[in-house]
Amino acid sequence: MIESFRPPTRVLMGPGPSMVHPRVLQAGARPTLGHLDPSFIGMMDELKVMLQRAFQCDYETTFVVSGPGSAGMESCLLNLLEPGDQAVVCINGVFGNRLKEIVSRCGAQPVVVEGDWGSPVDPEVVESCLQTHPDASLVAFVHAETSTGAMSDARRLAELAHRYGCLAVADCVTSLAGSPLVVAEWQLDAVYSGSQKCLSCVPGLSPVTFSPAAMQRVQNRQSPVQSWFLDVSLLTGYWGEGQRVYHHTAPVNSLYALHEALVLLEEEGLSARWERHQLHHRALLAGLHAMGLSMVVDEAHRLPQLNAVWIPDGVDDATLRHRLLDDFQIEIGAGLGPFAGRVWRIGLMGESAHRHHVLRLLSALARLLSEMGQSIAPDAPLMAAEAIYDQAGETVFDSDAPVSER
Amino acid sequence: MIESFRPPTRVLMGPGPSMVHPRVLQAGARPTLGHLDPSFIGMMDELKVMLQRAFQCDYETTFVVSGPGSAGMESCLLNLLEPGDQAVVCINGVFGNRLKEIVSRCGAQPVVVEGDWGSPVDPEVVESCLQTHPDASLVAFVHAETSTGAMSDARRLAELAHRYGCLAVADCVTSLAGSPLVVAEWQLDAVYSGSQKCLSCVPGLSPVTFSPAAMQRVQNRQSPVQSWFLDVSLLTGYWGEGQRVYHHTAPVNSLYALHEALVLLEEEGLSARWERHQLHHRALLAGLHAMGLSMVVDEAHRLPQLNAVWIPDGVDDATLRHRLLDDFQIEIGAGLGPFAGRVWRIGLMGESAHRHHVLRLLSALARLLSEMGQSIAPDAPLMAAEAIYDQAGETVFDSDAPVSER
Repeated sequence: MIESFRPPTRVLMGPGPSMVHPRVLQAGARPTLGHLDPSFIGMMDELKVMLQRAFQCDYETTFVVSGPGSAGMESCLLNLLEPGDQAVVCINGVFGNRLKEIVSRCGAQPVVVEGDWGSPVDPEVVESCLQTHPDASLVAFVHAETSTGAMSDARRLAELAHRYGCLAVADCVTSLAGSPLVVAEWQLDAVYSGSQKCLSCVPGLSPVTFSPAAMQRVQNRQSPVQSWFLDVSLLTGYWGEGQRVYHHTAPVNSLYALHEALVLLEEEGLSARWERHQLHHRALLAGLHAMGLSMVVDEAHRLPQLNAVWIPDGVDDATLRHRLLDDFQIEIGAGLGPFAGRVWRIGLMGESAHRHHVLRLLSALARLLSEMGQSIAPDAPLMAAEAIYDQAGETVFDSDAPVSER
Repeated sequence: MIESFRPPTRVLMGPGPSMVHPRVLQAGARPTLGHLDPSFIGMMDELKVMLQRAFQCDYETTFVVSGPGSAGMESCLLNLLEPGDQAVVCINGVFGNRLKEIVSRCGAQPVVVEGDWGSPVDPEVVESCLQTHPDASLVAFVHAETSTGAMSDARRLAELAHRYGCLAVADCVTSLAGSPLVVAEWQLDAVYSGSQKCLSCVPGLSPVTFSPAAMQRVQNRQSPVQSWFLDVSLLTGYWGEGQRVYHHTAPVNSLYALHEALVLLEEEGLSARWERHQLHHRALLAGLHAMGLSMVVDEAHRLPQLNAVWIPDGVDDATLRHRLLDDFQIEIGAGLGPFAGRVWRIGLMGESAHRHHVLRLLSALARLLSEMGQSIAPDAPLMAAEAIYDQAGETVFDSDAPVSER
C-alpha cells in the first residue's frame, strides 16, 4: 500500500523551482471552481491585468499557457512560424538550443547565431546574420539564460529584429520579476515565462504575451498552427473579452496560486523586487568571493537571480551537491551541457532571495568546502555577506521580512 | 489593488472539473521540491505504479503529461503519426472532432467515421472503413464521450484496429476510474486521461500510457515528433528508470495532488469506485425520471459518470443553470455543439458521486423546474433516489462516507 507523500522541506536555491510563499500554496488549495464559473472568469481577468503589469505591457493577448515554460516556448514559436519560414535563433546556452530544436520541429529553418556559454548574445553577430538572411521573419533569443546566468540585451536585439523586418521572441522564463524587463518599451513581440522562477509560484504554468504585431502575423497565417492545444487564436476565445469559449479545462488551482503570487508581487512592487534580487545577489557574491570562488559570467552581464559559479579544483560536484541536500536540506543546481561537473548554479529567485537563505547556504557551503580541503578563513564568507547587508542599512531588513508582515 | 482570490464553494456536477477531496488539495499545498530531488523522484515512481494499476496495465511507458487532457490527446497522436499517415478517427461528439483536428494538424490524413451524437461508435462502420483504407496505421476513438455521455466498446474497437494492422488510441479522459477500463486486456495502445474527472484531482494533468507496440512505432519513426514538449522519447528520459534526465520542470505540486488522488483511489479500490459511480448514477436517474426528464443516451451505452439529459420544452437552459449556480451553488454542464441549449450534462465524477450531492441537486432541480412551470410531484424525485439508496442497503452508507473515515 502506497502512503500519502510527505515531502521534506528544502531550501530551493537551484535554477527553479524556487521557494513558494505559504500564501501561494494556500491559494492553490482553495476549492476548485469550474473553468467557466463567472467567479473564476473574474479571477482570470485580474490575473491578466497583473500579468500585464509584471510584463510591463498592455498587450491584449496576455494569458497563461496551461503548461510549463517549454510549452510557452513552443506556443510563441509555433504560432509565429510557418513551414519554410526562416528564424534567426541565438544560442548561448541550453535554452537557445531548445529554441532551435522547436523551430526545426515546426518545419521552419533555424539560422543559428552561436555565442559563448556564459556570455550574452552578441548583437553585432546577430546583425550580420540578419544582413545575410533577408528572408528571416523572426529573431528568437533568451533574455536570461538559466543554464549560464548571462543576461542579453533584449531591447537592442528587438530593435535589430525590427530593423530587419523580423518579430522578436524573447525567453523571459528566468527574468520576469527578477531583473528589469519592460516588454512594451523594448517592443518585444512574443514573450514567455515560467511560474516557478522569480514569481515564486508552483511550477507548471507559463505566462505569455503577444504584441499586436505578433497577433497580426498570426492572423495572416496561411497554414494552421500545428498544435491545437497551443493555438493562440483558439486560446484567446477563452482568455479574451466577452463570452468565454471552452477550449480546454484550465488548471484552476494552479491559476489561483499564480494569482496570489502576483498579488504578492504587487504588494512588494516590481522594482522593489528587482532591487531585492540585486541586494541578495551582492551579498551572495561577497560570500562566494570570500571562499575564493569565481563567477562564470562577467559582472556587466550577470543575472542576480541565477549565479553560475566555477567548481574549484579538487571538489567533486555531485558529492558536494548531495551533501548540501542531505545534511543541510539545500538544493543548488548542477551545470548543464559543457558546464556539467564544472559549474554550480545558485538560484536567488523570488522567495529564495532572502537573507536567511543566503546566509544558510554560505555557511553550509563554506563548511563542506573546508571539509573537502579548500582553504577558507572561518566566518569570512558570512562576514562578507553581512557587510553587504549592513551597508544596505534598514531597507534590507524591511525587504527581507515576509511581504505579509510589512 | 487586487486582493487575494477567495473562491465560493461550489458543488461541481458538470463535465469536470469534479469536486476535489480535501486531502488532495492539502497534498498540492505541501512544500515544493526540485524536480530532480531524490525524494520527488521516489514519489514519481509511486505515481507511476498507481497509474498503471488505475489503467490496469503494466506498460512501462506510463507517465503524466504536464498539461490538460487535450495535451495528452496531442501527445498520443503526435508521437504515433507521421506526415502522410492515415488515421481512422471515430467521431460521435466534440472530442472525436478534436481528435480529427489534431490528426490534420500533424500532417496526417484523418479518415472519418461519423456517428450519431449520443450513440456509441459503431464497430461495423469502423470495420468497413478499415477495409476500404488498408493504409491506415491508427484508429482513434473516444471511450467515454464527455460531450454526450455515450460509452463506446473500446475493447472491440481495439480488436478491429489490430486486425487491420492499426494501433488503437483511446480517449479515456472521462472513463478512467469512473467505469470499467482495462487497458492491457483490451490491448489499447495509447491512452490519455485527465486529472480532473473521476480521479477527482485538480485540473491540469494528463495521465497517459503507451503499449510496447506503440513505443515500437515511436522508435521506428522516420521524422521527429513535431512537438518537443510532448516528445515521448524525451519524456521517458525523465519518467523512466535509472538516471533522470532533465526535460522540463515538472508541475511538482499538482503531481503531489495526483499522487494523493491515486492513494485515495487505492484505499477505495478501483472496482469499488466503478460501482460507486453506478450506484449514484442509478439514484440520479431515478430522481430525474421522477421529474419527467429523459436521457440522451440509451441505457446500454450510458456512462454513469456523465449524464446527458434533454432539457424539457419551455425551460430556458441558461436561466436554469445560472439559478442553480447562484441560488444553490451547484454547477452542471451546458450542451456543446448540436446539443447547445438542448441538453444538460450532469457529472457524477469521483468526489462528486456522493449521496448528499445527488440529493442536493435533485432537490434544487425539482424546485427550479416547478417554478418554471414543469409539473413535478413534490418529493417524488428525492423519494425515488432514496429508494435506490435504500435498496442498495448498508454498502451505500459505507461508500458514501469520505474515504478517510472508513
